[in-house]
Amino acid sequence: MARARLPRRGFLKAAAVGAAAATASGFPAPAISQGLQRWKMATAWPKNFPGLGTGARRIADAITRMSGGRIEVKLFAGGELVPAFEVFDAVRQGTAEVGHTAAAYWTGKNKSFAFFAVVPAGLIAQEHNAWMEYGGGQELWDEMYGAYGLKAFPAGNTGTQMGGWFNKEINGMADFDGLRMRIPGLAGEVINRAGGISVSVPGAEIMTSLQSGVVDAVEFAGPWTDLAFGLHKVAKYYYGPGFHEPGASLELMINAELWDSLDHELKAVVRHACASENQRILSEFTAGNAASLQALIHKHGITPRPFPDDVVSAMRAISNEVIAETAAEGDVNRRVWESWSKFRDQVTALAPFTEQGALNQRDM
Amino acid sequence: MARARLPRRGFLKAAAVGAAAATASGFPAPAISQGLQRWKMATAWPKNFPGLGTGARRIADAITRMSGGRIEVKLFAGGELVPAFEVFDAVRQGTAEVGHTAAAYWTGKNKSFAFFAVVPAGLIAQEHNAWMEYGGGQELWDEMYGAYGLKAFPAGNTGTQMGGWFNKEINGMADFDGLRMRIPGLAGEVINRAGGISVSVPGAEIMTSLQSGVVDAVEFAGPWTDLAFGLHKVAKYYYGPGFHEPGASLELMINAELWDSLDHELKAVVRHACASENQRILSEFTAGNAASLQALIHKHGITPRPFPDDVVSAMRAISNEVIAETAAEGDVNRRVWESWSKFRDQVTALAPFTEQGALNQRDM
Repeated sequence: MARARLPRRGFLKAAAVGAAAATASGFPAPAISQGLQRWKMATAWPKNFPGLGTGARRIADAITRMSGGRIEVKLFAGGELVPAFEVFDAVRQGTAEVGHTAAAYWTGKNKSFAFFAVVPAGLIAQEHNAWMEYGGGQELWDEMYGAYGLKAFPAGNTGTQMGGWFNKEINGMADFDGLRMRIPGLAGEVINRAGGISVSVPGAEIMTSLQSGVVDAVEFAGPWTDLAFGLHKVAKYYYGPGFHEPGASLELMINAELWDSLDHELKAVVRHACASENQRILSEFTAGNAASLQALIHKHGITPRPFPDDVVSAMRAISNEVIAETAAEGDVNRRVWESWSKFRDQVTALAPFTEQGALNQRDM
Repeated sequence: MARARLPRRGFLKAAAVGAAAATASGFPAPAISQGLQRWKMATAWPKNFPGLGTGARRIADAITRMSGGRIEVKLFAGGELVPAFEVFDAVRQGTAEVGHTAAAYWTGKNKSFAFFAVVPAGLIAQEHNAWMEYGGGQELWDEMYGAYGLKAFPAGNTGTQMGGWFNKEINGMADFDGLRMRIPGLAGEVINRAGGISVSVPGAEIMTSLQSGVVDAVEFAGPWTDLAFGLHKVAKYYYGPGFHEPGASLELMINAELWDSLDHELKAVVRHACASENQRILSEFTAGNAASLQALIHKHGITPRPFPDDVVSAMRAISNEVIAETAAEGDVNRRVWESWSKFRDQVTALAPFTEQGALNQRDM
């Protein structure tokens, strides 16, 4: 597949500061050959937002620190440099050198991008990472983003997300008839096919949309973020886990031309800053969710509950339809589906003998 | 608690090569202030052993590459520089600058070290990492290893391990009466209290010990390593998951005096090399186990099975006794137990709404 090469934008040259002066010192070339680069990191999150904003900040700091100052990364919250949902194009076009977002946001460009973030009835974080690193996922991502002049790495995971906050009890699939729910992406399509109406609501308006009755239900992430938003103040019924986001992976994207220009040392710095945060953000969510769940139950009187089994199995059946349909959209889409679904089958067979089994032993 | 300061061993000085020459070049001081350091990494694994040796090699390479050659790490397999079970003392004494092993190997020095690796009926990898990074685990580890002149970071995880290979069926606790099993550490103590006999067998002799009847059962890790060892050729019954290692964390240990001497850049390089591999080794095991389980079932006719529920619950009860007893061994041991068990209770309450719930939805 032909790579959509963008015109040289010259920002590599513009970003190199002081290289000439350093070269004049006579110190061996490799240490200074690229001079100082200043990178802008656009993100889709408010500054220091739990897990997402805090993780983006740590990635920016890690690249700056590990590169010994050869790269200085400046962090921009969503909307500061470009709007949250324009980061993909900003990094393509060189308005920002790097971006911290989630591939699920760009399914308008290609539905199969969702597999590099999370799909309904998909993989948990540990399984997703294994597919990316040892199951062929990264290579397929490189191919798909490469066509847009981008390179990306997994750079954080929220862990399994809750099913959401509802203003009524969910006792069966009939309760989704006409239910208006804030739920994005492929999961929104699942809700639509289940008889509900998926509604797009920006993060900042989640609270008011539920409070005013614009929607009957919302999902955001997990107990940690949901408590921070105050969702327990406006809805009574908290269901989880969701069927739709068993492990949502975040991404660090970098302009491909810039990536190709980096030497081995700086490439390693960027890769390890991402891989390191890929696990740390998951730790932060796990610990934050654990503490916040206790607060929701014991301080705020919320009783979280699972969806009824028949709701889960019906939603999973619809989910599997929706994600399988992506295979028909093109050659690479078919290969993504085949690689991913083969890997899913293998880890699904493994899970009862590993993490799923270990967790269930607690109930014996 | 007083830190057991070791006499200066002068290896920092010895490891600095060419610093004087570099300083003479007139290049600004920070980039070269420590000159070139050559580090020896002792490990407890055969070279390129699945997941363990391959992960250690990647950590060595990552430190070398990201430091821009300021540190060159040379890898030694178990036994090459020092025997596998002497790495702890080798890094304390400066025979090696760093070591890649598992804290569970050093419970002879202090039983509570097991909490920094894995304990029976403990946490899965994701939960363990969350405790280390956001639950106070790292600080307690720093305190305990600091007393020995060491600093360590989580640097890999095998994921949940299998229960092991047995030469007879396990139908109840009575089947453990007099059963001789290769199983190390606190889990060995659990087997002893269950009426069995835990036996210490070096990794290299696992196959022959089971084949010759020296033991009736062995556990090593998971399908990937077990298939590589050929354990399916000498035992018929494969049980899993085990109750004893829900997620075994590996460690990178570094001499504390050396660690304290590193500048911010090199500290960040070491930390991120570890955190990055902490997730990558888990990916490697997850993908390797998934593929190898298929091979064991479909090529080698092995039918893995879970332990009976009453065996699991009895073994978990004994495990909880054994791990709780560590609290009585001293002040820091009590604090480790309190921190860990509080965190375990919180993530145990969370799991049904997150990963455990998501994995179980597959069976609905």
